[in-house]
Amino acid sequence: TLPTTLNGNTMLLITMDTASEVENDCKVNKVGHSHSHDSWPLCLVEISLDVDADRDGQVERNNPNKGSWMWGPNGHGAILLVNCDSERTYGKSICEMSDLKDMSPMVLRTSGPAKLPAGYKLTMHISQGDAESVRVFRTRSTSFVKDYPLVLGSEDLSKEVPYLGGNAEMNFYVEGLRFPDIDFEGLISISLSLLEPSSQGFPETPIFTDRVVFRVAPWIMTPNTLNPVEVFICSTSDNYQFLKGMKRLVENSGYKLKVCHEYMNRGDRWMQDEIEFGYIDSPHQRFPVVLDSPRDGELQDFPYDVLLGPDFGYVTRTAYDEEVSSLDSFGNLEVSPPVIVNGKIYPLGRIIIGVAFPTATKGRNMTKVVQDFLWAQKVQEPIALFSDWLLVGHVDEFMTFVPAADKKGFRLLLASPDAGYKLFRGLQKDGHGQAKMFDGLGAEEEITVDEILSDDKLRAENNYVQSCIDWNRDVLKRELGLDDDDIIDLPILFHVMEENRAVAYYPDMVNMIVLGKNLGIPKPFGPKVDGRCALEAEMTSLMEGLGLSCTYIDDFASYHKLLGEVHCGSNVRREPFSFKWWNLEM
Amino acid sequence: TLPTTLNGNTMLLITMDTASEVENDCKVNKVGHSHSHDSWPLCLVEISLDVDADRDGQVERNNPNKGSWMWGPNGHGAILLVNCDSERTYGKSICEMSDLKDMSPMVLRTSGPAKLPAGYKLTMHISQGDAESVRVFRTRSTSFVKDYPLVLGSEDLSKEVPYLGGNAEMNFYVEGLRFPDIDFEGLISISLSLLEPSSQGFPETPIFTDRVVFRVAPWIMTPNTLNPVEVFICSTSDNYQFLKGMKRLVENSGYKLKVCHEYMNRGDRWMQDEIEFGYIDSPHQRFPVVLDSPRDGELQDFPYDVLLGPDFGYVTRTAYDEEVSSLDSFGNLEVSPPVIVNGKIYPLGRIIIGVAFPTATKGRNMTKVVQDFLWAQKVQEPIALFSDWLLVGHVDEFMTFVPAADKKGFRLLLASPDAGYKLFRGLQKDGHGQAKMFDGLGAEEEITVDEILSDDKLRAENNYVQSCIDWNRDVLKRELGLDDDDIIDLPILFHVMEENRAVAYYPDMVNMIVLGKNLGIPKPFGPKVDGRCALEAEMTSLMEGLGLSCTYIDDFASYHKLLGEVHCGSNVRREPFSFKWWNLEM
Repeated sequence: TLPTTLNGNTMLLITMDTASEVENDCKVNKVGHSHSHDSWPLCLVEISLDVDADRDGQVERNNPNKGSWMWGPNGHGAILLVNCDSERTYGKSICEMSDLKDMSPMVLRTSGPAKLPAGYKLTMHISQGDAESVRVFRTRSTSFVKDYPLVLGSEDLSKEVPYLGGNAEMNFYVEGLRFPDIDFEGLISISLSLLEPSSQGFPETPIFTDRVVFRVAPWIMTPNTLNPVEVFICSTSDNYQFLKGMKRLVENSGYKLKVCHEYMNRGDRWMQDEIEFGYIDSPHQRFPVVLDSPRDGELQDFPYDVLLGPDFGYVTRTAYDEEVSSLDSFGNLEVSPPVIVNGKIYPLGRIIIGVAFPTATKGRNMTKVVQDFLWAQKVQEPIALFSDWLLVGHVDEFMTFVPAADKKGFRLLLASPDAGYKLFRGLQKDGHGQAKMFDGLGAEEEITVDEILSDDKLRAENNYVQSCIDWNRDVLKRELGLDDDDIIDLPILFHVMEENRAVAYYPDMVNMIVLGKNLGIPKPFGPKVDGRCALEAEMTSLMEGLGLSCTYIDDFASYHKLLGEVHCGSNVRREPFSFKWWNLEM
Repeated sequence: TLPTTLNGNTMLLITMDTASEVENDCKVNKVGHSHSHDSWPLCLVEISLDVDADRDGQVERNNPNKGSWMWGPNGHGAILLVNCDSERTYGKSICEMSDLKDMSPMVLRTSGPAKLPAGYKLTMHISQGDAESVRVFRTRSTSFVKDYPLVLGSEDLSKEVPYLGGNAEMNFYVEGLRFPDIDFEGLISISLSLLEPSSQGFPETPIFTDRVVFRVAPWIMTPNTLNPVEVFICSTSDNYQFLKGMKRLVENSGYKLKVCHEYMNRGDRWMQDEIEFGYIDSPHQRFPVVLDSPRDGELQDFPYDVLLGPDFGYVTRTAYDEEVSSLDSFGNLEVSPPVIVNGKIYPLGRIIIGVAFPTATKGRNMTKVVQDFLWAQKVQEPIALFSDWLLVGHVDEFMTFVPAADKKGFRLLLASPDAGYKLFRGLQKDGHGQAKMFDGLGAEEEITVDEILSDDKLRAENNYVQSCIDWNRDVLKRELGLDDDDIIDLPILFHVMEENRAVAYYPDMVNMIVLGKNLGIPKPFGPKVDGRCALEAEMTSLMEGLGLSCTYIDDFASYHKLLGEVHCGSNVRREPFSFKWWNLEM
């Protein structure tokens, strides 16, 4: 009861430090007041919407930073996965318990009387803008079963949630629906308001709102320096030799080989080009996610029908208004190992794509929808190289990365016509001018070292190719912070076809599969010296210095002649980075 | 001349430290080589594309940071203005010298022989994605006149630029075309490549590329705490009294009054609602820019036809797929003074808009195109309040900011029905229950203090209004880092109309014009005590404590009755911040 000396200019600040045990268990009595009622009822309810804002996998109690998101090891803010695997069809209710693990837990903690004062209620709500990116489910226990009804989604931006009374916790599960993209930074808010009844006929008004923020986890690619998990290749009617070579390599290396059979691939052998393996990660869950190319060859059903499954996610981008070109195949989408560039650290490496050189009057490009998606993931800031000089137009035709124990932990391998000519001139000088390339592949293929070196047109073509690769070499040095010592030039010649676009002259050794210390390299069928292929010898010698072992795989008829090689015809799912993307300093 | 002991495995690294004075003035002679030519010609050309990357208003020489952009006082990166004023129509050539000042200077510095070796050339280029956001002009001096032809734009992504020979500088002017928005972060690159000829029939290839990066300057709003420059109001057939009051206030305050006459406003008096004044800023140029609302009332031609001019820019957003509502009027778009929130500094304040409360099943909102634009400017991170509880739905109906010498440099003023009832109850208690509101405005308007206090429906309506304002008060405290001491409650009553939406019961004193220390406030026509309006007395007393002077302007018939007040009917262009937006730490 307050003193009677209060006048109309006094403001009362009333604080309560314990939640009410019964409704309106405190009152402020008014003395000598003209109004009909002579006390104000008071009721204290503690409400906290809680998430894992400190990123330790547990939902802590009322983290002061839960309403904002900050990058870095000293950062904060909860993380949401796009639930893009397939524990269920896209229904409104959760069927499998395992599906809950893909969602971010969220807890509503309340403390107060058994029920709220008449007319008060709790409402959870999201904004219209966030509604296409998130759904919220809750746990409901009935006497027989637990179920998980949908609380919020695009059809319900706001819903009352029950107030349980006493000290209660209600569990929610938050599901991401969309990856970051050009029109979606990835941040999502969920609010919980206590609504107060108004006088007759007026809407209820919020008197307290608690808010939590999530960031949707980006899709992350895995470079050649990460350990393989499984290798994917296609079986076709004509690639038995290749399949056998690959099988031996993969099994000897100790990894799992998965073969996509012809009923599924319908002759499309370009396993690299239809898909890119990546993953998504959060403190509570992590799983692989395949990015499906808008290329859509005959392999197009494979990622959705075969790869997508429980704890294996799927995402794609569709080019509605754009022409899809060969540059949209994911042989044109690679990622570097971790690098430091002018002091800036990229602990997850940088994505590498190939586009048209901008001074070209007309050129092919990777579609904007895919480029936008890649840039929006943010954590592996992309680099655009110039790949349109190639007939097929993929960056994996002239570059790859291999692990190394020294220096930066890897080397960049580049196709180099200059290195090729140097090797051939050396052979000629040492008296092997009559040694034959393509020996044993049929008379029409064979050509001597002397003939190659005397072909001025081929030399001019390779000068052009070298200048295209050199420009990319400069970009890679600058954007990955590389020195010349970090780069190894491989002896590879090209020739130039229609529209001045280049293809490999013999199997393109840089287009390899990297399985730990074992490399699967297209067998180049180079000129033999003392019975040994001079190109293999040079390649093996270059890689031996790094402790890497080379296996040459005959892909001549079934891949090389169709303008691809070992890398184009395979794909590797790798272990994720141990580095956590949310610890990036942005 | 090199020693004769070189063999095929030697790599030559040749460095030159001075640019060539004549073409191919250096040669590397080859001895004992079988090729037909016996020397390699060498030529060194220094090329640097330069911009004002250190933001001092001058283009420095080859800044090592010119290819990237970083926020903050220790940051770097050049700045581009959207050339949205009107020195010229949108032609392909620059006519007015003053137009050049709106563009960012860029210099191509070359040093080398009088001409490049045969077939080499310089090309400037931009990406397809940037082409809609930027144009580049260059200076060309002929014997008679200087002109400024277009070099790059959406129709020319790439163009050869002449090599002038010797030590030369060529001046370019870069023009921004688009403000940052949801699909455009604001960064733009311009590259310059040296192209090398290839053998017969092959495309030229770049052997060196230099790149500069610009960020387009954001549109910045000006809070009430900045000094006014000019005040805009409309003249209509019925607002003579208002016009007279405003004219006296503005002139006495020492500012310029600009009247928009009826032939232009066609009776639309809501000068606040059609436009928002802001500015854009760079190290080399700064000018005001008006944001035109998609509201498009009868005032819609005013910003484009009258305001847009030399050194006065214009920008608008058009809602193609959305319904425009009253919440798109810019009485619903305000900006706070500079604030510090939990240690985070907002030196340019924060934008404030009003939207529907998300728990409402249906509500009006500001259009997404305008919201997207505001958020994309980044430097005044917006706050969304709940304004849809008002019939007109504008945040300026319940809040404003006034300057103050103490505390945070300002106070937030909030309309407060509770403060209004407290004042009326005080009057009743002191024996003024029969004092009349709206005295002198006609018998049908008049109402006594006792009558107001005994109206239970009005009290219920105001309880509802107070709860709506209280929720916004909590948001403003949290998002602006305010204490209760930073807020002043003004005695203002509302009543609730159709669809449970509120309007001010008497002229809404918070809807004021702030001109330095002088406030122009809607005359409230409150009950008189000893011949003096009790509402004016309270308001004046509250503002006097801050050193502010109140002028009450009669807007009853011509504004209040039409659901607006002084602020709705006026607009103020203010001086820009002295703080430079690029010095923000993001």
